[in-house]
Amino acid sequence: MKAARLYEYDPAMNVELKIEDVRPPTIAAPDEVIVKVGAAGLCRTDLHIIEGVWKDIMDIEGGLLPYTMGHENAGWVEDVGSAVTSVKPGDAVICHPFNSCGICMSCRYGHDMYCDHGKFPGLGLDGGFAEYFKTNERSLIKLNTGITPLEVAPMADAGITAYRAAKKAAKLLNPGGYVLLLGIGGLGHIALQVLKHTSGARVIAVDREPAAQALARDLGADIVLDGGPDLIDEVKDLTGGGAHVAIDFVGEHGTENTCWKLLRQGGELIMVGYGGTVEVPTLELVANEIKIGGSLVGDFVELVELMEMNADGKVHMHQTEYKLANINQAITDFKDRKFTGRGVIVP
Amino acid sequence: MKAARLYEYDPAMNVELKIEDVRPPTIAAPDEVIVKVGAAGLCRTDLHIIEGVWKDIMDIEGGLLPYTMGHENAGWVEDVGSAVTSVKPGDAVICHPFNSCGICMSCRYGHDMYCDHGKFPGLGLDGGFAEYFKTNERSLIKLNTGITPLEVAPMADAGITAYRAAKKAAKLLNPGGYVLLLGIGGLGHIALQVLKHTSGARVIAVDREPAAQALARDLGADIVLDGGPDLIDEVKDLTGGGAHVAIDFVGEHGTENTCWKLLRQGGELIMVGYGGTVEVPTLELVANEIKIGGSLVGDFVELVELMEMNADGKVHMHQTEYKLANINQAITDFKDRKFTGRGVIVP
Amino acid sequence: MKAARLYEYDPAMNVELKIEDVRPPTIAAPDEVIVKVGAAGLCRTDLHIIEGVWKDIMDIEGGLLPYTMGHENAGWVEDVGSAVTSVKPGDAVICHPFNSCGICMSCRYGHDMYCDHGKFPGLGLDGGFAEYFKTNERSLIKLNTGITPLEVAPMADAGITAYRAAKKAAKLLNPGGYVLLLGIGGLGHIALQVLKHTSGARVIAVDREPAAQALARDLGADIVLDGGPDLIDEVKDLTGGGAHVAIDFVGEHGTENTCWKLLRQGGELIMVGYGGTVEVPTLELVANEIKIGGSLVGDFVELVELMEMNADGKVHMHQTEYKLANINQAITDFKDRKFTGRGVIVP
Amino acid sequence: MKAARLYEYDPAMNVELKIEDVRPPTIAAPDEVIVKVGAAGLCRTDLHIIEGVWKDIMDIEGGLLPYTMGHENAGWVEDVGSAVTSVKPGDAVICHPFNSCGICMSCRYGHDMYCDHGKFPGLGLDGGFAEYFKTNERSLIKLNTGITPLEVAPMADAGITAYRAAKKAAKLLNPGGYVLLLGIGGLGHIALQVLKHTSGARVIAVDREPAAQALARDLGADIVLDGGPDLIDEVKDLTGGGAHVAIDFVGEHGTENTCWKLLRQGGELIMVGYGGTVEVPTLELVANEIKIGGSLVGDFVELVELMEMNADGKVHMHQTEYKLANINQAITDFKDRKFTGRGVIVP
Repeated sequence: MKAARLYEYDPAMNVELKIEDVRPPTIAAPDEVIVKVGAAGLCRTDLHIIEGVWKDIMDIEGGLLPYTMGHENAGWVEDVGSAVTSVKPGDAVICHPFNSCGICMSCRYGHDMYCDHGKFPGLGLDGGFAEYFKTNERSLIKLNTGITPLEVAPMADAGITAYRAAKKAAKLLNPGGYVLLLGIGGLGHIALQVLKHTSGARVIAVDREPAAQALARDLGADIVLDGGPDLIDEVKDLTGGGAHVAIDFVGEHGTENTCWKLLRQGGELIMVGYGGTVEVPTLELVANEIKIGGSLVGDFVELVELMEMNADGKVHMHQTEYKLANINQAITDFKDRKFTGRGVIVP
Repeated sequence: MKAARLYEYDPAMNVELKIEDVRPPTIAAPDEVIVKVGAAGLCRTDLHIIEGVWKDIMDIEGGLLPYTMGHENAGWVEDVGSAVTSVKPGDAVICHPFNSCGICMSCRYGHDMYCDHGKFPGLGLDGGFAEYFKTNERSLIKLNTGITPLEVAPMADAGITAYRAAKKAAKLLNPGGYVLLLGIGGLGHIALQVLKHTSGARVIAVDREPAAQALARDLGADIVLDGGPDLIDEVKDLTGGGAHVAIDFVGEHGTENTCWKLLRQGGELIMVGYGGTVEVPTLELVANEIKIGGSLVGDFVELVELMEMNADGKVHMHQTEYKLANINQAITDFKDRKFTGRGVIVP
Repeated sequence: MKAARLYEYDPAMNVELKIEDVRPPTIAAPDEVIVKVGAAGLCRTDLHIIEGVWKDIMDIEGGLLPYTMGHENAGWVEDVGSAVTSVKPGDAVICHPFNSCGICMSCRYGHDMYCDHGKFPGLGLDGGFAEYFKTNERSLIKLNTGITPLEVAPMADAGITAYRAAKKAAKLLNPGGYVLLLGIGGLGHIALQVLKHTSGARVIAVDREPAAQALARDLGADIVLDGGPDLIDEVKDLTGGGAHVAIDFVGEHGTENTCWKLLRQGGELIMVGYGGTVEVPTLELVANEIKIGGSLVGDFVELVELMEMNADGKVHMHQTEYKLANINQAITDFKDRKFTGRGVIVP
Repeated sequence: MKAARLYEYDPAMNVELKIEDVRPPTIAAPDEVIVKVGAAGLCRTDLHIIEGVWKDIMDIEGGLLPYTMGHENAGWVEDVGSAVTSVKPGDAVICHPFNSCGICMSCRYGHDMYCDHGKFPGLGLDGGFAEYFKTNERSLIKLNTGITPLEVAPMADAGITAYRAAKKAAKLLNPGGYVLLLGIGGLGHIALQVLKHTSGARVIAVDREPAAQALARDLGADIVLDGGPDLIDEVKDLTGGGAHVAIDFVGEHGTENTCWKLLRQGGELIMVGYGGTVEVPTLELVANEIKIGGSLVGDFVELVELMEMNADGKVHMHQTEYKLANINQAITDFKDRKFTGRGVIVP
């Protein structure tokens, strides 16, 4: 089968994925499932993987290269291991990106993403930029009737990462409150939709790209800003003292030290993007009683909830499609923000 | 001034309020405020007051009769006590129904409705079915620009009672979940709108009146049922096991023992209406781990939040207006469900 | 092996378990585990099983009789199925009573007890009043060093049922608040210890038996009452208005309508015992904004947490031991409250 | 009366408070209360005030100097304004440090410390290092029978700052979890006691001073460490992966970048001390999903709760007393850590 594989890391990103013929995966353990890929989303983490950012954290030895990238996958069940009972060949499914064990204490508490024995196909082992890929039963959710893999693939990671952050934000918000979203890209536009349906708060969308601003307006943002140098003062004025919650989907290039400054007393910053370093005086933390916390990919049940919102017509993925053969063009366009929302690779 | 006053309790409700001339209220303490009434909502609790239901709970001695009813008030500040700083004559305001002290432990915890020294104008002392009525500074919220007292008066009690129940429900719900509302009247239609904006869950609206069903559909109910004898089975089928949360806005005539039976395991019933008696085997409580809890009028901050949702265009009061002189007709129409939403009295 | 088996239900409880020789269980599926029983607690639910109370709820056909009772088990792993990795023969373990699947949505949310495919050994299928019994990998927790099965067996059900209720209560309590425990038996004395370490609130222990009262005092109860006819007034006086939370471990013989009457406004009753019927006017629910909810057996992670408290010396099981051959005497003594705390059966 | 007054800021702290005769305060508004000081705690914030750290945040103009410091006060009511009803002359009271208005939205939400119109006696206006000082009714809590002002004065600020942080921590902890306290001084030793009674978790106390370590052991710390260069690895080993929660009572001199490194995935750092700057890569925030938040002085109800724990014998202040005339010696001893727990000034 065709697959797009990474052969080396390069902080400058002057490398391309190689499209080549490889042997399709096969079942080797009773809980494994082979999925025929319908679509696979292209993620900012894919850029960071190529840059080598995750090399150490995930214990990915250089020796593991090359491998097939792609961790936002949806498709149809092709084959199942002997112990699998909840899905069968032919089922349309979306794949939670993390293969968790179900036995360790993190799994028992429902924190799949902290699983002691988890694997992340597409990050250190073969993923979904291919015709087939292998995952496990615990990662699969059957699609609702009438939903196709192509419509939802990036929900598997971009979607739930945004959903998890938005869900945390919604718990902190009351009607009349303000939540600011920095970056209305593949994640931000999903968070915007989730917040419009689950908090009664006002959404301030910030992005310097006119196309992203237009998308934010279409999706119901109450206020749209371009994130110029006066952003902090602007937000404090508009909100009467600062945002109650901010979600930073960028987290680098200096934005990482913007959002905690535009919070009101008691406010909270949820960091989703990464790359930069937060520098905050403890006096600011204490006197304003603000909080700064990272947010990871969502858990399995969060993907279930997001898929229900999608099936109810409350949240949809705004995306642009590329053939697998054109994946390197997709990566370039992503870096250059040539499309709004998400890029999706179709085998 | 003209006022509509109650002279006697009658469980059969064969009594009318007397429209008579009384002396307008005057300032007697530094935190008091006189409000020129713009509109006053008519509440099911008014019916229960006339029936004598609240006589004992509120320590209303028979000797207190007669008094002016009306506890859902909005209008314009007419006069203020010497210590009042946050409002001034001419301000358009909505009046939280309960005058709390701000000093007792319940107030300090933010539970205004549990205030040790609170008063409830319209329930045992003169309320707003009149041209003027007296309240205190802590009960007042200035209206947002462009909002008139007539549009929002019933928000003061019907609105926040529904809002409080809906807010409790929203905290218990996830996208894909089901919340059932029994009774789409003055409270239910507000709860429906709040839930559509603050939970990602599906709303099942139940009412036997076609007009109320139509209103529910207009407001976005996902499923509308007429509450026939098969309601419990119907809900279990539609929801795949039962509702996650139910709010019973009726609470009498047998409905009080319907909703706990249609919950799924771990579900919760929020009781807002009253009059009947819940009879539930402890084995059902334990084996299904269900919960049944009453919900009172909302606190001050809940009225603030609801007014923000109203100003944002997310929640509006569906209402029918009556002149003060026709208040007894309004009461009769209310009992006979001649109007949907809320009845409002205009001086 | 020897086992104590139930042959018929009898509401009057004039039946005895038969001690007889049966074939020991054997592994039939990859996730199964055979445990050599070290001890098995005797539970009020065992009395209710014999009475036939659970017959319908658990879909236990009369045809399933006879079976071996006993669902509070601890011992040593004897044999494991092919897929089991987290325990091995010889490990000392305590057994969560419910065998959950780990795949259904309830399991994914961490609500093991709501599992769609769960089994409850000792309730409809063979349990631990025997030399060996069969369970599954997901139900097992390895004992901390130095802890023996005999010390902790009733933690597996009595313990976590009390723990779950106490944990719910602790979340509702603040220092200076009051929590009332009705019934200081096998569950109540565990809840008391948990609450002393996890809430800063004052514990009121109520039991009519002097021995149970003495145990409550030993374990640090702040107030001990005998539950006479003036209990409600007594509690309202002592607490300045009513308890913030009450846990009813009896739930029958009239107690089920005592505790909601001694709550303060905003209070919550957690029902653990069962048998009776709660009858509460909706007006009481609403005007006092009280809540009544059942509480089931705790989830797996709750057993883990309780075992940590036990290992830390914060909670221990007060118990009386009986040989398996004397199990019918143990049942009689339990009914007659001849011992405090819990009765434990040793093979 | 005698008072200890600050005349100038000095980052090097080479200034002394002047003990001088000033006119006692008098009632000027209806909600004011004059308190005869029984004792006043000495706070690290007093050191920071002298250094000039708070000069800008509190809008304290240089022109406001000189003023009487001291914001941890307890004593006896001496005189009350005309509107005061909840206390009377002679009552023994502890004084919440912040005078809040009770009307603004922050007050209505129960966030006294965020009050739009609040004042902080001892920080920019005259405080309690004197024989008398002035506060308002909303800041006063009557002492429980048998409790003297001298025993509890530092509870008013040190106590509730520690209590608020400990309460936040307790909500995040489960039995078997680990909470690390960095700095077992006037605040840390209170947090330790609160956590032992309100969480079932294990407390790791870290302090380099042997006397503070001994105090921690006396108060029940499960593990006591001296905070050497291997602290992070040591904690990760002891806890099997990192602390669930850490509270940093120092927040300067480099400690501010220690605690977030010793958290486990999903862990939370509560920052109470201040002076330094946190520098944390966004990748660490996201990949480990950790959270860092400041914690301010506790709200009024938190002081009530702490006083109840004190009255119940669960928490007591470990302190050393100094006469007002010796306050500069007390300040020097505090900087040099000559005493454990808290220093208290007695007029």
